[in-house]
Amino acid sequence: MTTIKDNDLQKLKQKVYQANLDLVKHRLVLFTWGNASAIDREKGLIVIKPSGVPYDKMKADDMVVVDLFGKVIEGKYNPSSDTATHIELYKAFCDIEGIAHTHSTYATAWAQAGKAIPLTGTTHADYFSQDIPCTPDMAQERIFKEYEKETGLIIVETFKDMNPIYTPGVLVKNHGSFTWGKDVKNAVENSVVMEEIAKMAFLSFSINSELTMNTLLAKKHFERKHGKQAYYGQKNI
Amino acid sequence: MTTIKDNDLQKLKQKVYQANLDLVKHRLVLFTWGNASAIDREKGLIVIKPSGVPYDKMKADDMVVVDLFGKVIEGKYNPSSDTATHIELYKAFCDIEGIAHTHSTYATAWAQAGKAIPLTGTTHADYFSQDIPCTPDMAQERIFKEYEKETGLIIVETFKDMNPIYTPGVLVKNHGSFTWGKDVKNAVENSVVMEEIAKMAFLSFSINSELTMNTLLAKKHFERKHGKQAYYGQKNI
Amino acid sequence: MTTIKDNDLQKLKQKVYQANLDLVKHRLVLFTWGNASAIDREKGLIVIKPSGVPYDKMKADDMVVVDLFGKVIEGKYNPSSDTATHIELYKAFCDIEGIAHTHSTYATAWAQAGKAIPLTGTTHADYFSQDIPCTPDMAQERIFKEYEKETGLIIVETFKDMNPIYTPGVLVKNHGSFTWGKDVKNAVENSVVMEEIAKMAFLSFSINSELTMNTLLAKKHFERKHGKQAYYGQKNI
Amino acid sequence: MTTIKDNDLQKLKQKVYQANLDLVKHRLVLFTWGNASAIDREKGLIVIKPSGVPYDKMKADDMVVVDLFGKVIEGKYNPSSDTATHIELYKAFCDIEGIAHTHSTYATAWAQAGKAIPLTGTTHADYFSQDIPCTPDMAQERIFKEYEKETGLIIVETFKDMNPIYTPGVLVKNHGSFTWGKDVKNAVENSVVMEEIAKMAFLSFSINSELTMNTLLAKKHFERKHGKQAYYGQKNI
Repeated sequence: MTTIKDNDLQKLKQKVYQANLDLVKHRLVLFTWGNASAIDREKGLIVIKPSGVPYDKMKADDMVVVDLFGKVIEGKYNPSSDTATHIELYKAFCDIEGIAHTHSTYATAWAQAGKAIPLTGTTHADYFSQDIPCTPDMAQERIFKEYEKETGLIIVETFKDMNPIYTPGVLVKNHGSFTWGKDVKNAVENSVVMEEIAKMAFLSFSINSELTMNTLLAKKHFERKHGKQAYYGQKNI
Repeated sequence: MTTIKDNDLQKLKQKVYQANLDLVKHRLVLFTWGNASAIDREKGLIVIKPSGVPYDKMKADDMVVVDLFGKVIEGKYNPSSDTATHIELYKAFCDIEGIAHTHSTYATAWAQAGKAIPLTGTTHADYFSQDIPCTPDMAQERIFKEYEKETGLIIVETFKDMNPIYTPGVLVKNHGSFTWGKDVKNAVENSVVMEEIAKMAFLSFSINSELTMNTLLAKKHFERKHGKQAYYGQKNI
Repeated sequence: MTTIKDNDLQKLKQKVYQANLDLVKHRLVLFTWGNASAIDREKGLIVIKPSGVPYDKMKADDMVVVDLFGKVIEGKYNPSSDTATHIELYKAFCDIEGIAHTHSTYATAWAQAGKAIPLTGTTHADYFSQDIPCTPDMAQERIFKEYEKETGLIIVETFKDMNPIYTPGVLVKNHGSFTWGKDVKNAVENSVVMEEIAKMAFLSFSINSELTMNTLLAKKHFERKHGKQAYYGQKNI
Repeated sequence: MTTIKDNDLQKLKQKVYQANLDLVKHRLVLFTWGNASAIDREKGLIVIKPSGVPYDKMKADDMVVVDLFGKVIEGKYNPSSDTATHIELYKAFCDIEGIAHTHSTYATAWAQAGKAIPLTGTTHADYFSQDIPCTPDMAQERIFKEYEKETGLIIVETFKDMNPIYTPGVLVKNHGSFTWGKDVKNAVENSVVMEEIAKMAFLSFSINSELTMNTLLAKKHFERKHGKQAYYGQKNI
């Protein structure tokens, strides 16, 4: 195993480490049930959380560097058991540079219910342009072959007619959520948002099972924050 | 852009800044999803949170001063993207001097359900004299013209037969809540109350979908705290 | 207004003050929506929270002393607006020496639903020997006469065939909860318990609307902690 | 009562003490509503929390040592009133060395509903290989004979065709949960997990009462973490 003392990678490790801690801070992860990663597109290298290491003992330097074939390039620990899923997403969605995975309570409840999180309000539309899809059941042979890789592939199949930038996250049936973004911080932010809109959608449907959402209002809100006409926020911060 | 080093405005900035932090402290705002403002009625100037600036970096001096036409009078940032909504409310409801906007979980759940928050108890009646209304769907041309201004106007239309002082808040359909009050602190307090009564109403209807509320009891409680016969609290604090 | 610098009363003020802070610490009270009191049975004097004074500014010495006619004996503030309710309870339930009142979320949800909190488990039975009753609607003339006193009387009427020691709390319809106990600390403890069992009963009925509770198991648990055969805990602490 | 100043037992007391504090830290226990114990299999001695002692005053040295007949061997307090239940579990499940008991909110809600917690996702399957069972109603003569011992026996009967290592926990009808593990820390971890999956299952069924779980996916996840083929985590930490 070669050791690369590369400045960019050290910075990326720090960001990935911080992102993993943020998942805990936002109460999206219990024990070690989650992981976040980032990719250095130029080098073709992924920095990811080690598998099953307690957060209170984990250091930035414990992050594991793997290549796009899953080979460990640097790090003393095994990478996250979900590494193969991250790899498939980075390979298929070329505009993303960060991924987060959680079993956060409300998002997971929708995943266990096997239902997409419906677009019910502008909070959702500010970040996700449409319903957040749920993958279908996985066939038996895929489960017992290369399960984590197949999880990535089934997500990619679910997005075959969707833009992953406009809908930066997915539910994996009976499992949990994956979110992504332009960097690992953005991926974590999208996990936080998904959990909150999963909770609000649950409550809204409990109040009114026949609620409606004006899709033009959703479009307006998404475009307020994204794309060329965006006018939310500041230009220079 | 002129710079006004006005003592009153500096104090108002401090209050608006504190009110915005209070929205976070009461867990009504995630990230930058909310805003609070106050008006100086004599000067005709509004102090409002800047758009999309993270709370942990925001300072009192970053609050933006705008006039009733939305023109920035003071401040280096863009004002909240919802500024035009605040302006319409200040123009129409002349007795209010503070406004808060949130996507708080339970209030937003009712807004997404497209339902008013029903008056179900004295906690509600202590602050809001009747059901908290929900605006109707907005027509397409209004969404794509001056959306934030139209949001203000549709709230004002919703209150055409209601007293905004006796019902100091509203749900905007599929969006979130606006509350107001005699000052910005009071507006934030009404947001806190709305979130709590939205949660309790949700639970109460889940327990008993045919619950009833004695409107005379509601009237009694509202009058215990408001109006000439009020006897709750102390006279001099 | 006479000033009694009585040692017992000073101690009682400290206990009542602490009990009011505990209501906030256990998240049963938002703003000033609650109150706790204690009685000195020998002196016939009640120590109660002042009305509407913010908790972060309140001191032990701000507690108000009233007699059983509601007359303020000591203290610079108005007593809680619910004082007359406390008085009726102390007059009718002679074995209690502390009372707490809250609008805690789940207990209030049941009160707004107009339903007793059903006995569904041993957590409930460890503290309350049967369903926690909900008062009936109050007649119009009672609401507009001496409302707070009538609230106390309607609670007493609700307990006409019940032992208030074995069921140390009640829901007031569309309002909130009152709990009591052998002292003010015990009254607050019963408020904490009521909120938790109100939440668990809500969830249990959502899972199984036809659930059953073995009343013999309830009897066993209540007697493990109360009465002559009690064997829970230690004898000397 | 003999006093054994045994090093192993002192260490076990420290672990049991810490485990009891962890139950509170994870918000599974209110007041003194829970307990944890560990067994020294060689000595045949159990270390358990004292009954009804407040957590903020409890010290490691207050843990009580009892033998498998329930006789107190060391300690100045009465042992937990549930000691006889722990003893029956240690006698019947010979591979476990730690037990925890709680009235945690969502697990207790399922217990009060009298329903097993259904296997609805991989979070559940990572720790519990199937539905978490709920004991049946206890017959009257068992309740009023040796209630706590009978509680242990009814759990053992519930597991007559199940492996307690693969399903390390149970709901006791109308009461709460017991979990166990290879040590007391692991038992507490399983209580934390049970509470979270109880919440997620509640939400999932509220969203979709006809949800399905692929049992092969559950098998895959359980085997990722348990048994010879396990590959989650690190080998040496």
